[in-house]
Parts: sequence; structure tokens; C-alpha cells
Amino acid sequence: MRSQLSKRFEAEISKMPVIDPHTHLQHRTPSAEFIGNIFGYHYIKMELSTAGMDVEKLMDESLPPDTFLKNALPFIPKIRNTTTWWGFMTICRALGFGDSTIHEANWQDLCKVASNTMQAENWYREALDNINIKRSFLTNPPDEDLDGCDREAFVPSLRTDEWVLQIHEESTRQRLEKLTRSSINSMKGLKASIHEVAERFVGLGAASMAISLPPDFQAFVVAKADAEALYGKVLQGKRLSDNQLARLQTHMLYSLFEVCDELHLPFQLMLGVERGIHLKLGWDGFSTDLGMMKTFRDALNRFPDVKFVFSILNTILTHELAIYAKTFANCYAAGHWWYTFYPCIIKQMILERLQAVPYTKLIGWYSDSYYVEWTIAKIKLYIRTLAGALAEIVEDGYMDENLALEVALALLWDNNVEIFALNL
Amino acid sequence: MRSQLSKRFEAEISKMPVIDPHTHLQHRTPSAEFIGNIFGYHYIKMELSTAGMDVEKLMDESLPPDTFLKNALPFIPKIRNTTTWWGFMTICRALGFGDSTIHEANWQDLCKVASNTMQAENWYREALDNINIKRSFLTNPPDEDLDGCDREAFVPSLRTDEWVLQIHEESTRQRLEKLTRSSINSMKGLKASIHEVAERFVGLGAASMAISLPPDFQAFVVAKADAEALYGKVLQGKRLSDNQLARLQTHMLYSLFEVCDELHLPFQLMLGVERGIHLKLGWDGFSTDLGMMKTFRDALNRFPDVKFVFSILNTILTHELAIYAKTFANCYAAGHWWYTFYPCIIKQMILERLQAVPYTKLIGWYSDSYYVEWTIAKIKLYIRTLAGALAEIVEDGYMDENLALEVALALLWDNNVEIFALNL
Amino acid sequence: MRSQLSKRFEAEISKMPVIDPHTHLQHRTPSAEFIGNIFGYHYIKMELSTAGMDVEKLMDESLPPDTFLKNALPFIPKIRNTTTWWGFMTICRALGFGDSTIHEANWQDLCKVASNTMQAENWYREALDNINIKRSFLTNPPDEDLDGCDREAFVPSLRTDEWVLQIHEESTRQRLEKLTRSSINSMKGLKASIHEVAERFVGLGAASMAISLPPDFQAFVVAKADAEALYGKVLQGKRLSDNQLARLQTHMLYSLFEVCDELHLPFQLMLGVERGIHLKLGWDGFSTDLGMMKTFRDALNRFPDVKFVFSILNTILTHELAIYAKTFANCYAAGHWWYTFYPCIIKQMILERLQAVPYTKLIGWYSDSYYVEWTIAKIKLYIRTLAGALAEIVEDGYMDENLALEVALALLWDNNVEIFALNL
Repeated sequence: MRSQLSKRFEAEISKMPVIDPHTHLQHRTPSAEFIGNIFGYHYIKMELSTAGMDVEKLMDESLPPDTFLKNALPFIPKIRNTTTWWGFMTICRALGFGDSTIHEANWQDLCKVASNTMQAENWYREALDNINIKRSFLTNPPDEDLDGCDREAFVPSLRTDEWVLQIHEESTRQRLEKLTRSSINSMKGLKASIHEVAERFVGLGAASMAISLPPDFQAFVVAKADAEALYGKVLQGKRLSDNQLARLQTHMLYSLFEVCDELHLPFQLMLGVERGIHLKLGWDGFSTDLGMMKTFRDALNRFPDVKFVFSILNTILTHELAIYAKTFANCYAAGHWWYTFYPCIIKQMILERLQAVPYTKLIGWYSDSYYVEWTIAKIKLYIRTLAGALAEIVEDGYMDENLALEVALALLWDNNVEIFALNL
Repeated sequence: MRSQLSKRFEAEISKMPVIDPHTHLQHRTPSAEFIGNIFGYHYIKMELSTAGMDVEKLMDESLPPDTFLKNALPFIPKIRNTTTWWGFMTICRALGFGDSTIHEANWQDLCKVASNTMQAENWYREALDNINIKRSFLTNPPDEDLDGCDREAFVPSLRTDEWVLQIHEESTRQRLEKLTRSSINSMKGLKASIHEVAERFVGLGAASMAISLPPDFQAFVVAKADAEALYGKVLQGKRLSDNQLARLQTHMLYSLFEVCDELHLPFQLMLGVERGIHLKLGWDGFSTDLGMMKTFRDALNRFPDVKFVFSILNTILTHELAIYAKTFANCYAAGHWWYTFYPCIIKQMILERLQAVPYTKLIGWYSDSYYVEWTIAKIKLYIRTLAGALAEIVEDGYMDENLALEVALALLWDNNVEIFALNL
Repeated sequence: MRSQLSKRFEAEISKMPVIDPHTHLQHRTPSAEFIGNIFGYHYIKMELSTAGMDVEKLMDESLPPDTFLKNALPFIPKIRNTTTWWGFMTICRALGFGDSTIHEANWQDLCKVASNTMQAENWYREALDNINIKRSFLTNPPDEDLDGCDREAFVPSLRTDEWVLQIHEESTRQRLEKLTRSSINSMKGLKASIHEVAERFVGLGAASMAISLPPDFQAFVVAKADAEALYGKVLQGKRLSDNQLARLQTHMLYSLFEVCDELHLPFQLMLGVERGIHLKLGWDGFSTDLGMMKTFRDALNRFPDVKFVFSILNTILTHELAIYAKTFANCYAAGHWWYTFYPCIIKQMILERLQAVPYTKLIGWYSDSYYVEWTIAKIKLYIRTLAGALAEIVEDGYMDENLALEVALALLWDNNVEIFALNL
């Protein structure tokens, strides 16, 4: 049963300022226009699909977004139990829709109410204000145009997956060449271009570098000469063996660590996704390799001044991640990613982190959202869960109420300001 | 503390109709005759054994069943804490025994009361009625005689372990030959016989195929020609290498998937058991291979029309199984098997499934029992745990009470009817 | 919310006698002299370090212990959330310090109060009496001098890591030679010396043998002739390959199992630590190998009369350990080690053990402490958690209150007396 304290904490924490240090918001279109955009979020689509909806046909991208919702009506009852659905209904309420279910008779009302709200001037600022989100990090590919980006709302973050995982692809090099108006003829040249882009991002106010790595990624030192030779093969259009590619990828990752070291950029690492495990629909999944944290031991020891901010996409290694954050001053544990963003998993992770790790080493939450509307659902779910976990800790006598609220503020705000050196 | 809502849910759910989609009941002797039969369940025997009882000597199968109980009296106090023991006492109460402990002075009363109840006409129907179980699946070896099977109580399920795991054994082929009055001279012939048996089972009302696989089983496609050649070696009495046997086994498993596809049979897969880890007493155990779910990715993509109903025998991969059920429309997560059938584990699994997976993709429970009496204990333990989990979800605001009860009914009844296409 | 029953259980269990079957207490200096000694515990140091303190400089061992505390004052606010910090404050209160925080204005008071208390005659006996600890096991290297050891307070335990893990080091052999005044020229001679030392420890009242093994340790049978040949190479000063060393190590471990068998010594095995993962500061960590329990299957089957008492340093395999304790009469599950000693983890482990394993197979707790003061903190945290877990079990109807208290006493006292054959 939720205690009174838990409810009181939820109310108190809901008033706190929040930074959202990982999103996929587009700075030019941070909010949706139609409820169908929100409803078409892959978190929901996957649930409709597994519940039997032919999402390829019925959610065809060429249809008007709100048609998605209409076509999905027969399948909605089957997904009402999930907390993702709770999130969607929470968004509907925030947009001004009063009903507690969606069906043939009211879906058009929802579409209307939602569009009216979302298409109002400055809605995204209002939406973020309502939930006290003062800054949201973006996920910017190296060539993203940040002109006109609302700096009162957004903080750039340089996403670097391509440079590491697709280092062997011609297109990776070409994009970098275009971006730096240079010709890349060696590993040295490649690194120089990357450095230039990273510096440019720092100049644009980027607060972090970010990458998502698969569960079996191996991080280890590869000698420069080895990497230079391997990249030479790439430049000649030769295929690398799996082992050679792995060496080249980890070498590049280490060189990004060096860039972060030099530019004082924290590095957000998201571990565990496996892309496209559903062949027909392209859904991503995850799997676990028991060495996926351990493989970063060398880097944590080698780059004491780089802040490594880890998220992990399984329930198996969350304890090990917490203990890494407790062991290494430059290791931070962040949030509850994707398939772990469910209250029962979040709560266990909060408890194990707050009981074991100094709270300044923890980033409580990020939304990972594509539209500000989903941010609403996700912060509310998180705050409710955090309140419950903190109440349990206080009721068990391990913290007092004041400290619990201080910790909550740190998880949502202070630690982000400190770790990412935000200039607010 | 159990909330009032949790207790109310327990009472409500206890009135719902239930289907038990996996048991080892014998259709001719579905109930025990003596309390000793019930007491001799391996769940209890293992606990007595680990607590110091010489089960080989004191539970000798040649002794009258009730002597088991007498000999075990000194060891009973040591196992009183387990929920298996709670289950046994729950059965005793259901059989009419009033005491809350068992000792020298009352064990004979228990034997008498229990025998009287169980040996009454149609007791098994009454026992199942009392807990609202309308159908129980059987586990039928290919050559089981289903004549006279009570179709109002039981649903056949074709167990296929032998065809896959013992495909290299002469006896496997011989039994199939006898059963199909044929001579098997090739992989093609083997498959034809298997197909014939499967069809016969469908004709007898079988609602599923079932198999139990070890944690390190590798499922992958093997070319027909390769499999035919390997089976040729088997037919010549030659020994296969481990790798060859693995190829033959997975080929056979894939051919069972094809049979299921053709005959519209759901496939119940139970993953993780390791047989006979206790050498002297033969107790089974389990272990975990992190690839044990992932290995079925290919099959899930390849057979979209086969319903794969997975159970898993560890706590490590329950989250991954839940996410598979969320990702693949043809993947279902079922119940809480054996060493995971404890309230604290069941509750966590229920929460993580109900928060992440559309509830139509979940089978809540099965008893795995050998006598209907154990079914009583197991459904009661499950319902209590389910009620607690649902109450927590409602109290946290993620479902309302009506939906929670709808979900409960689906987990126990509707989903079984739908997934196994039961004709009730 | 903590229930009334949980609080009542906490009060009741706090009155029970306790045995602490694993500590690193020094029998001549079992208590600290200065609060700085207690504060300098590596559990706290690591937290200060990860929170940003330069522990090398600011906690330099050459400084007076209480200077540690003074230097750490700015970092204390950052670690207030952990249950380790709760433990430290619990110790401060037990030493007579009344404030609830530590800061510039009161740290010297704390130093004074603490020293006064701890430097009083027989303080360690009083400290242990206050928490009803009747015996604490020591961790004795083979050559430890136990003269004058307080047998009313301490029980020796022979630590054997060196003999197994460093079997290839000359110093291991030399220490044994010195200790047994012999010359070791063969594996046979090595074993004879070890046997002699073990017998001597039994004569001194040792109640167990103990060892800590890394997560990837492989236990398997190696033929005597093979081991003898490998040890021959060691004696000649030749380097063994990794595989050869692994064979020699497991052979030695098996020969320790034989010694335990012969001398009726229980064997405490602590699995999972990885030494020195933080290169600069030397912090230990852990990792998980999914075979780390399974590798002991052969030994559990082979030595039915040796009591194997396992602890495990991860959250991944605690369920598997519980099921081993349920399967093998000679397998026991013990306590909550180091990085698993947090309430949310302990509670889950208690529930899964008490629901699945006969309680006589469980050792509830040990402190692992270096000074009796930390024992105070650790037993209090454990009892509070145990009380909560037992209350939940009783409230869910799986035990009654009397049984719950009986179980608590067994976990803290009876089982230790029985398993380690203590003569009290």
C-alpha cells in the first residue's frame, strides 16, 4: 500500500526543477502536432503489434497520424494494463482530454483537444514548464544544424555511434569530410576531423558526448600503429575481419575518451541494445553479456578525469553498475533505460543505488523521449516511483525526510548541473 | 503488510474459472490415494533430504506410502518454513484435516482422513471443482493410451522431448515405428512418423505440443541434406560427435515447429532444467545460459504463425522473456516454473510482466502437478500472490480495480482459451 | 511502510543470542582505539573516494587516525544517503555520541567520546555483549599466533586462500616449511604439511576452514600424478601456464576438501571477489561467471560428509545458491557478503531462501568486520531487515509468529552451533 509519506513525497518532488539529460527531441519540432504522433511512439506500437495489430498496414506512415489511433481502437483494450498505456493516458489528460478510456465514441474528441493544445504557440515551453523541466539534452548527429536552437530549453549532446560502430563505412568518412571540408587519408586525419567536430560542439554549448553500444562490445587498448594499418585497409576499400573491425572500433572509442578528456566533456554510454531483432518490423531488443561493465575497467582506470555516465539495458547488471559507481570516482550511474523503465524495476534500482552509492554519483532520470509530451508521462512515472522508494527508505529509518528530499533534488537537478557543468 | 484490497482481490480471484495448461496428471489416476503419495512429491522429498533425512531408506518406494510420512516426522519441523510445506498443510486442510501441525500423535488421523476423502467416488472432479479448475492439460508421451480419458476434465498435450533430445537413440525410433506400424529408414521417414503421431493427437483433442530443453540448447537452422546425412549415421548405429548431435537435435526441433505451423498447434517450451545434478538421489537442477532466450530469435521470426509459449527456470532471464513476449506477437510468457514457484519470485515476475507486456500475451499459472491435490496448494499460493501484485499496481495508480480483475481472469482463463483455441 | 509486526520482531530478535561466523577481528585488538579507525573502514573510504575525496592524501595511513575524520568533513554530506553511513552513525551512537550529524563543530567531541568508550577496560566484551554476540569467528592465516586468544569470545577459522591460489609461489611453501619445521619436496610433502597445520588448528578449537575464490575459479578433479608433476615444475622454479596453474589450484582445493572430510571441518567458501580492480587505490570488486556455483557440483556429490558453506558476491546467482542449498544436504547458504550487504538485496535474499530452503540449511548473517564496532552496525541492519522479511512472510500467511521467531533464532544462533559443532 502507498503510504502517506510516499504521496507527500510525490507532491513535494513534483515541484522540484528537473534537467532531462537524454532525449531524442528535435529542437525545431520538440512537440507533436497530432495525438497520432504521440500514439505512434514505438513503445506503444510494439505493444499493439504484439497484441495482434498489423502495424505495418494499420499504422502506415503515409496515413494521417490520427488514423493510427482510429485503426488501433480494437487493440487498445489489450494493452491497457501496461505502464506505457498509463503514460499515454497521462499525456491525454495533460492535453486536456477528460475521459479515462478511448473508444469509437470519443477518439475524435481526443484528436481535436490534443491538436488544439499542441498547436498553440509555445506549447512545448508550456509543457516543459508544467513539469518543471528547465533543460532537455538533445541527441545530435555530428552534422546536425543547431541554428535557431532554443538555448533556454535545450542542451546539445554530440552522438558518436557512427564514428565507432560504422568506422569502416565510406559514408562515415564522407560525412566527416563534408563537415570539416577536409580530405581524410589516414587514421590521424580521421581523428583530427572528429576532434574538430567535437570542439565545434563544445563551442555550441554541447554538454556531453554520447554513444550507444551493443552488449558484446569489447573495450580495450589497440596500438596506434595497428589502428592506422587497419584504417589504411578501410581507406583502400578492403573488408576487415570481425576481429580487425572490433580492434578498430575500440581504438576509435578510446580516441573519443581522449577527446572527452581534452575537452572536459562527460561521456554518456548506453549499453546493451541489439538492433532489429524483429526482422519484419525492426523492433530493437537487448541481451546481456556478463562482461559488458567489466570491459570498461581499463578505461575507468586510464581516464580518471573523464566522467563516464553509464546506462544499462538489462536487469542483470544493474547491481554491478551501482558498485562501479561506488568504486570509481569517474563513474556515474544514470536513469532507467527503455526496457527497464517500469516501476517495479526502477524501484529496485533506486533502492540498490541509494543504499550503496553516494547520491552525488547518480543521475536519477532521463526521458529518452522524441516529443515533450512523452516527457510528461515519463517524469510523472519516475517521480511516483522515486517517492515510493524514498518513503520506504525513510520508513525503514535509513534517511530522514529532509535528506530524502535533498537526494531527490540532486537526482533530478543538482547532479546534472554538477556533472555536466551546466551554466544555467 | 497485506492490504485490504489484496485480501479482497484474493477472494474475488478465487471465484474465477481456471485452466491449468501444464500438469503431469495421469488421466486414469489423477488423484492420490494416500497422503503419503502427496507427501512423497519430489518438492517435499528434496526438502526432507536436504534437512538430513535419508530419503533412499526412509522413503523407499516399496514401503506403504503412509510409512513415508511416519518416517519423516522427525524431519518435518525443519522444513516448516518453506512455502512448499505451507502448500502441503493447505492440502491437508482441503482433505479435512483440522490440525495445524503433524506429529506422532496425529499423523495416523491425517492418513485416515486423507484416504477417506481421496478414495471417495469422483473425488478428483470435486477437488478440481472446489478450486474452479475447468480443464487441466496432460503431459502425454507419444504412445500414451488416451482411451477413456475424461474430456470434461483433461486436455491432451503431446510431449516431444524424446524426439529431439534422444533422436540418436534406437529406442526412440523403435517406439515411433511401433506406434505408426512403419519402418523408419531416413530422416524423411522419421518426420513422416512424427507428423502422423502429431496429427493423431490433434484428432484426440490435443491443444499443444510441449518440450523441456536444457539451458545450453542451441536452436538454429540445419540444412535438410546435412540432417539427412547425420540421421543416416544414426541409422547405421554410428556415434555422433557432440556437434553433430546438436545439429540433428535442432533440426528436429525446427521440424517440430513446422508441424506446429501446419497443424496450428501452440508449442509450450520449458527452458532451463538440468537433469540429475544430485548423482545419488537424482534431483534435477537448473543453470542459466545467457543465450537461452536469444537462441529462439530466428524461430520466432521464421514461424510467425506458431505460438511459442515459453517458461523459464531461473530468475536471471525472466525480464528478457517478458520483453520477448512484448516484442514478438507469436511469443507468450507462461507461469512460474518449479524453482521459481515461490511467492517473492512470482510477485516480481507478475509485476514486470504486467507493467511491460500486454496482458493477452501472458499465461498466469500452471500447476505442473502430478496429483490434483497439489494443484489445490499451487493455485491458492498463486492467487494470493497475484492478488498482492495486482493490489500494489492498483494502489500505485497504474490500473483500476475493474481492470485488475479483468486481467486476473485473462491470466487464469481467457488467455488459455484464446491461445490454445480451446473448445469449451 | 514498516508494520507493527516488523517493529515487534525487530525488538524480539534483538534480544536473541548471536554467533558471528565470519569476521576479520584481530583477537588481540578486536576493538578500535579511535573513531578514525572505524571511519577508515574500506566501506566508508571507498564512498568518500568516489564522492571526490583524495583518500590517498587525506587519509594517509601515517596521519593520526582521527585526522581522517577531520579531513573528510567536507565529503561527509555526499555519502549521508548510504546504509554504510547509517551504520557509522549507529556506531557513533553506541559509543555515546548524541548528535545526528558530524561537522566542524562537533567532530572533536565525537573523537573524545569514542576514544573514552573504546579505550575502557574490556570494551570489546561489553560491545559484543550489548548486541548478544556470544562468539565471533576469526580469520586466521596458517601461521597466526593464537596464544592468549579469548576463547569465550572468539573461535578460530583457518584461512587457506594462499595454499590454493598462491600454490605456485615459493613463499607459500617456505611459510609452510617454517610452520611445520619440515622440508617440502613434493606435492605429497606439501599436503602432509597442510594436514599437519589443519590438525593443529582443530586442536586449537578451529571450527572451520575458509577460502575466498575468484568468480572464474574452476573446480574439477585432477589426477594425483598430474598434480605431482605440475608441483614438481613449481619446485624447480619453472613457470606454469595458466591452464597448468588452474589444474594445480583445483587439485589443491580438492585436497583441502579431503582434509575437511577427515577432520570433520566445515568449509566456508566465499565466491566472487576480484581483487584490485581500481588500480590506483586498490579497491576490490566482483564479477559474475554463470558457472561459479555449478563448478562445485562434482565436489558436493563427491564429499557428502563435508559441509560446504557458501557465500556469493553478486545478486545474479543468489537464487541458484538457494536452490543448491535445497538440493544438497551438505550445501549451506550463508549471509550477505560485502557488496550485497544492503537492505533491499538482503531482504530479497532472505525471502527467496526462507520460501525455498529448509531453514536449518541457512546461516543468516556474519559481520565480516575488522573491529567489533562495525559488528554493531551490521547486526542491527541485518536484524531490522530480517524482521521486515519475516513480518511480510507472516502477514502473507506462510508462517505464524512463533515459527518466524524460531527461524530467526536458528539463522542467528542454532544453525551456527549445529553446522560448526560449537561446544558452548
